[in-house]
Amino acid sequence: MVDGKVNFNNSYILIKALEDGVTIFGLTRGVDTKFHHSEKLDKGEIMVAQFTEHTSAVKIRGKAEVHSHHGCVKAGL
Amino acid sequence: MVDGKVNFNNSYILIKALEDGVTIFGLTRGVDTKFHHSEKLDKGEIMVAQFTEHTSAVKIRGKAEVHSHHGCVKAGL
Amino acid sequence: MVDGKVNFNNSYILIKALEDGVTIFGLTRGVDTKFHHSEKLDKGEIMVAQFTEHTSAVKIRGKAEVHSHHGCVKAGL
Amino acid sequence: MVDGKVNFNNSYILIKALEDGVTIFGLTRGVDTKFHHSEKLDKGEIMVAQFTEHTSAVKIRGKAEVHSHHGCVKAGL
Amino acid sequence: MVDGKVNFNNSYILIKALEDGVTIFGLTRGVDTKFHHSEKLDKGEIMVAQFTEHTSAVKIRGKAEVHSHHGCVKAGL
Amino acid sequence: MVDGKVNFNNSYILIKALEDGVTIFGLTRGVDTKFHHSEKLDKGEIMVAQFTEHTSAVKIRGKAEVHSHHGCVKAGL
Amino acid sequence: MVDGKVNFNNSYILIKALEDGVTIFGLTRGVDTKFHHSEKLDKGEIMVAQFTEHTSAVKIRGKAEVHSHHGCVKAGL
Amino acid sequence: MVDGKVNFNNSYILIKALEDGVTIFGLTRGVDTKFHHSEKLDKGEIMVAQFTEHTSAVKIRGKAEVHSHHGCVKAGL
Amino acid sequence: MVDGKVNFNNSYILIKALEDGVTIFGLTRGVDTKFHHSEKLDKGEIMVAQFTEHTSAVKIRGKAEVHSHHGCVKAGL
Amino acid sequence: MVDGKVNFNNSYILIKALEDGVTIFGLTRGVDTKFHHSEKLDKGEIMVAQFTEHTSAVKIRGKAEVHSHHGCVKAGL
Amino acid sequence: MVDGKVNFNNSYILIKALEDGVTIFGLTRGVDTKFHHSEKLDKGEIMVAQFTEHTSAVKIRGKAEVHSHHGCVKAGL
Amino acid sequence: MVDGKVNFNNSYILIKALEDGVTIFGLTRGVDTKFHHSEKLDKGEIMVAQFTEHTSAVKIRGKAEVHSHHGCVKAGL
Repeated sequence: MVDGKVNFNNSYILIKALEDGVTIFGLTRGVDTKFHHSEKLDKGEIMVAQFTEHTSAVKIRGKAEVHSHHGCVKAGL
Repeated sequence: MVDGKVNFNNSYILIKALEDGVTIFGLTRGVDTKFHHSEKLDKGEIMVAQFTEHTSAVKIRGKAEVHSHHGCVKAGL
Repeated sequence: MVDGKVNFNNSYILIKALEDGVTIFGLTRGVDTKFHHSEKLDKGEIMVAQFTEHTSAVKIRGKAEVHSHHGCVKAGL
Repeated sequence: MVDGKVNFNNSYILIKALEDGVTIFGLTRGVDTKFHHSEKLDKGEIMVAQFTEHTSAVKIRGKAEVHSHHGCVKAGL
Repeated sequence: MVDGKVNFNNSYILIKALEDGVTIFGLTRGVDTKFHHSEKLDKGEIMVAQFTEHTSAVKIRGKAEVHSHHGCVKAGL
Repeated sequence: MVDGKVNFNNSYILIKALEDGVTIFGLTRGVDTKFHHSEKLDKGEIMVAQFTEHTSAVKIRGKAEVHSHHGCVKAGL
Repeated sequence: MVDGKVNFNNSYILIKALEDGVTIFGLTRGVDTKFHHSEKLDKGEIMVAQFTEHTSAVKIRGKAEVHSHHGCVKAGL
Repeated sequence: MVDGKVNFNNSYILIKALEDGVTIFGLTRGVDTKFHHSEKLDKGEIMVAQFTEHTSAVKIRGKAEVHSHHGCVKAGL
Repeated sequence: MVDGKVNFNNSYILIKALEDGVTIFGLTRGVDTKFHHSEKLDKGEIMVAQFTEHTSAVKIRGKAEVHSHHGCVKAGL
Repeated sequence: MVDGKVNFNNSYILIKALEDGVTIFGLTRGVDTKFHHSEKLDKGEIMVAQFTEHTSAVKIRGKAEVHSHHGCVKAGL
Repeated sequence: MVDGKVNFNNSYILIKALEDGVTIFGLTRGVDTKFHHSEKLDKGEIMVAQFTEHTSAVKIRGKAEVHSHHGCVKAGL
Repeated sequence: MVDGKVNFNNSYILIKALEDGVTIFGLTRGVDTKFHHSEKLDKGEIMVAQFTEHTSAVKIRGKAEVHSHHGCVKAGL
């Protein structure tokens, strides 16, 4: 329905694990919304991740800090 | 009616579940507005989600914090 | 009368129902302005919705908070 | 006289009815300026509406709050 | 003399009638500057109007508030 | 000498007549600078006018307030 | 040497005559810099003028206020 | 699904190692999200790195300061 | 070496003569930098001048105020 | 996967050596991330360097101040 | 390696001579960096100069004030 | 790998020599990073220099002030 130029909002978010085994799930952009990737973080590890042409949503499970344009929100607490 | 370049406003919103079973419904962009996806969050889980070429509205059911450009609004309370 | 590139203002608004049965009506963009969709919200539910190429106006009936660029305005009160 | 790209200013305005029967008239963009649509709001109902390629002016009759970039102005009072 | 892309400044202004019979005249854009439309407002009515490809000037007669980027100026007083 | 895209600065100015017979002269854009239009305002009337592809200068004669990006300047005083 | 798109800085300046006979000279843009137009203002008259594809400099003679992006500077004093 | 112009957000982040052996993993942009590169930093070393057409996420393991638009977050602590 | 679109910085500067005979020299843009124009100002006269496709430098001789984005600097003093 | 226009973020960073032998490594943009250049700085020397189409990451070893959009961070300390 | 549109940063700088014989050297943009022009200023004279497609660096010798986006820096002192 | 439009960040930096013999080295943009030019400044001389399509890094040796977007940093001290 749309073709041509699209300006993604691929701002990055920063996730810091506060315990072992924090999981970050990437959900697919497009008609079907499925998990296409998951990444494990151990305590203290940081992931800095962008939205991409393949990823339009991110789900975080476990104790973690999520830094984004909306400030810092703690997950799992 | 419109073709050519469209700049989406695919800003992301951040949703933090405050109880188990919070549901996030994605509604389709386009002539028909239907649910095309739902996602369950358990307590403490966070979803960071963009509007996409397929999703133009999001509905949140259950106790949750919704962080967006309009600040933080609590659902289910 | 206009063809070529159009930059939509598809900023989103956030609506939080303060009672059961809040109704959100989407009105069509175009020569004819008709209701093309309505959505019911129960108390505490939140809808985050964009203007789209199909929706140029939104009507809210029932007790609700409407968060937009013009601040927070209460409906039904 | 003008063809090609036009950037609409389709900012939205928010109208809250303060009594039953508030009427919102949409006036046509183009050579002829005519009413092409009217919408009734009952007390407490809110309409959030954009300017579109068809609507370049809006007239409000009845007691209402009109929220726009120029602040909040009360109609009918 | 100019063809191709033109970015209109179609910002809207908001006019609130402070008495019956306030008249808003639209003047044509183009080589000839003529009245192409007039609109009557009764006391308390509000008109929110854009400049368009057809209207490059607006004249207000009668007691009214004119809200624009230059603030609020009172007509007829 | 210039063809192709030109972004006009068609910001509007607001003129409020402080006496009868205030005259607003539009001067032509282009090689020849001539008066192509004049508009009379009576006391209290307001004109909100844009620069256009035909008008690159405006002359005000009589007691009036001229509201522009450079603030409010009084004419005829 | 340059062809294609040129974004003019056609910001306007506002000149208020503080005496009769203030003269505003328009100088041509281009290889030759010549006077192509002059305009007389009587005391109290205001001219709001843009730079155009033909005018790249303006000279003011006589007592006047010149309002521009650089503030208000008085001529002839 | 998208072709044509894409504006990357290739803002850089700055990572300072606070111990030997801090590891920075680059994850691939695209359908498959895999590690495509890792870089070791010794204590005191600084890496200033952009997101690229190949890298859409970065993972940091070990004691380090991560400076980004979301401020300074410490990893491994 | 460069062809196609060039966005000039044709901001204007404002020069006010503080004595008779202030001279403003326009220097040519291009491979050769030569005087292509000079303009005399008498005491109190103001020149508002843009950089153009022909003028990339301006030299001021005599007592004058030079208003630009860098503030007000006095020449000849 | 991407062709057409890319807006690099080629902001520059400034590095000041605080001891002899500070090394600045440029890492290649692209599928392979390799060192493609290193530069030595002696005490007091300053390097002002941009990200380029060839360099997407910079590594600094030794005592140095690194000035960037994220402020001033000291390396090697 | 690069062709097509280039947005120059042709901001201007303002140089005020504080003694006779201040020299401003223009250095060529391009593969070879050579002096292509020098301009002498006598005490009190002001030069307002842009970077151009031919000039990418400017050298100032003698007592002078250099006004730029980085503030006012004095040369020769 | 990239062709088409590139927006250079050709912001300028300002270097003021605080002793004789300050050297400014220009390093080439491109696959090979080599010195392509050096410029000597004597005490008090100022160089205002842009990044260009040929220069992506600048090295400063000797006592000097370097004014950039990151403030004023002293070299050689």
